[in-house]
Amino acid sequence: MPVTENPDKKLKELGKNTLKQIEKEKNPDIELPIRVLSNIYFDEKSGLVRLGDKISHRTYLNVAHTRKFMQTLMVAAECKKIIDQDVTTSIRDLYYALKRTIPGTKENTVEYQGESDPIIEDLEAALDTLRERLHLQADRKGYVAGPIVVNDAGDRINCAKMGSSGWAIPSNVEPEVITFEKCTADFLIVVEKDAIWQRLNQDKFWKKYNCLILTGKGQPARGCRRLINRMHKELKLPVYVMTDADAWGYYIYSVIKQGSINLSFLSDRLGTPSAKFIGLTTRDVAKFGIPKNVTIKLNKGDIKRANEMLKYIWFKPKEWQDELKHMLEVGYKLELEALSAKGIKYISEKYLPQKIKDKDFLP
Amino acid sequence: MPVTENPDKKLKELGKNTLKQIEKEKNPDIELPIRVLSNIYFDEKSGLVRLGDKISHRTYLNVAHTRKFMQTLMVAAECKKIIDQDVTTSIRDLYYALKRTIPGTKENTVEYQGESDPIIEDLEAALDTLRERLHLQADRKGYVAGPIVVNDAGDRINCAKMGSSGWAIPSNVEPEVITFEKCTADFLIVVEKDAIWQRLNQDKFWKKYNCLILTGKGQPARGCRRLINRMHKELKLPVYVMTDADAWGYYIYSVIKQGSINLSFLSDRLGTPSAKFIGLTTRDVAKFGIPKNVTIKLNKGDIKRANEMLKYIWFKPKEWQDELKHMLEVGYKLELEALSAKGIKYISEKYLPQKIKDKDFLP
Repeated sequence: MPVTENPDKKLKELGKNTLKQIEKEKNPDIELPIRVLSNIYFDEKSGLVRLGDKISHRTYLNVAHTRKFMQTLMVAAECKKIIDQDVTTSIRDLYYALKRTIPGTKENTVEYQGESDPIIEDLEAALDTLRERLHLQADRKGYVAGPIVVNDAGDRINCAKMGSSGWAIPSNVEPEVITFEKCTADFLIVVEKDAIWQRLNQDKFWKKYNCLILTGKGQPARGCRRLINRMHKELKLPVYVMTDADAWGYYIYSVIKQGSINLSFLSDRLGTPSAKFIGLTTRDVAKFGIPKNVTIKLNKGDIKRANEMLKYIWFKPKEWQDELKHMLEVGYKLELEALSAKGIKYISEKYLPQKIKDKDFLP
Repeated sequence: MPVTENPDKKLKELGKNTLKQIEKEKNPDIELPIRVLSNIYFDEKSGLVRLGDKISHRTYLNVAHTRKFMQTLMVAAECKKIIDQDVTTSIRDLYYALKRTIPGTKENTVEYQGESDPIIEDLEAALDTLRERLHLQADRKGYVAGPIVVNDAGDRINCAKMGSSGWAIPSNVEPEVITFEKCTADFLIVVEKDAIWQRLNQDKFWKKYNCLILTGKGQPARGCRRLINRMHKELKLPVYVMTDADAWGYYIYSVIKQGSINLSFLSDRLGTPSAKFIGLTTRDVAKFGIPKNVTIKLNKGDIKRANEMLKYIWFKPKEWQDELKHMLEVGYKLELEALSAKGIKYISEKYLPQKIKDKDFLP
């Protein structure tokens, strides 16, 4: 499903429809896609986690809905206002802009940010749009280096000339703000950790292998996933993901690849199904002779999580089943930094080159 | 005290001295400045938190010291190695590079990163050097925008042309990596929160007021504090700090201004004693007509903290005593985002301009 390019119109419609219902003395009703596991499926054809077509109704004259109904219209109204003013704001600012005491009562419109954040996602799903198009931004993190020139809000940024810091990935990377002017890279490596990114940047790995290196600093923010998606789609760059060899790392990979349950309505925009996993795996310990004392013993939570992942449809490929079973068998996990036990530059001079040469990827 | 520009020499000396002690069959001994509250004082003349001259001895033939003694020499040896190789590494990588099982035992040299991190600080203090000079780097965060051209590891970066993202502050901002090529700004505003920085950047506040805007994203990392220090010293920029009106925000300000207890041996390099506090204060609520419902009630911890801060020597100026007492009196705190209740652009169009015009700063 295409994402609406003009949420302004949809916001107006939402308002008009509600008004019409009130004028007809009907119970005002907003239709919302249901965003829980029961309405999610894995679309094997596209390789994406997708939202089903179950719909819920949020109505005004339902005591359980009234407060959320009001909040939904308030968020919609505030978005309309900031779009009209052509400004962008943070989701925390939005919360403060909405917060007020309802006249004649002691009740506040919103009490804490945890109330307004899910309403924003509801609205994105209902209007089939992106938060960024509603002029809202969330936390940002992550950096890029390599042979690409981006245009960021009118400024040309050459990511091959960004020193030790790299280009900081903004919250909003939609084409209205970020365009790719030129890219000569052959592929993109996404690294879980900034320290590893800095290692690769210092070793000029991106220069030697003519690639881009990107880190999301842990679980990538939306802007970061969207950027990976756009770099793959628009620049045809193959994407390789490098994380720790643990359940959290494999989960990060799966979110980059297939999308997440919570934002399943955005999988087309945030997921990159053809991404491949370049490492780290527990099989690498033997393959690369990594000393055992830098591995970390699995705890109860790790074991439970690995057993759950074995059942996930997106970890069904035999290579993943093998890796997860092997992890449970040997009883350890390990972090990317463990490669330092073989030497500070081992990751850029031996580990990654060998992985790339052997095409030693997991699907 | 000047920071040693050549830690390589000092590392060699440390090794030679230890060897000499062993050859003379003496108990090997490393002298370390004591880095706890009892050896800290506030130097009113410089306005900095400073380390006293109490020294402790870490000796090999003391069961309580043996492990730490070994770790100290291991960290020193590894630093010497990476300096010789001219590479930089993260403190996490260092931990992994050191971790191994001691032959003939089941004991590991280091068990977790919490063991190696304080050793690095010990070594910095003992050798009178900076972690960055030992080629170690820690987490980085924070961004800068405005009329300054920096040279970052050989690349020229114009912070007035960095789009929506800004220049990402690297871990190491020492003159070996970062130099200032040109700066035409009149002052520097340090903002606690990235969302507020993005607001100011989007409104091109730095252009209108010919200043730099910098955010440390919460408690600033070392690199960020060092950059503020260098911008003030080398570029003669007055520094104004903007945080939430709460104990945590005021603490962030005090660390930027006076330095911290833990890194008191680096206060000259990390502190900026002439920094001023531009806001937010609880007095601003009445001054700017901020609605009461966006204030947050103080909890027990806030009250305890405010009472402690009233006694700190660096919060003794009457303006701070007044602010802290006022906070306790009205019983609330507030975040910078609370200004959004007056309008999204209120902070850049009304609040900050008024503060600057009235020179309404706290010392």
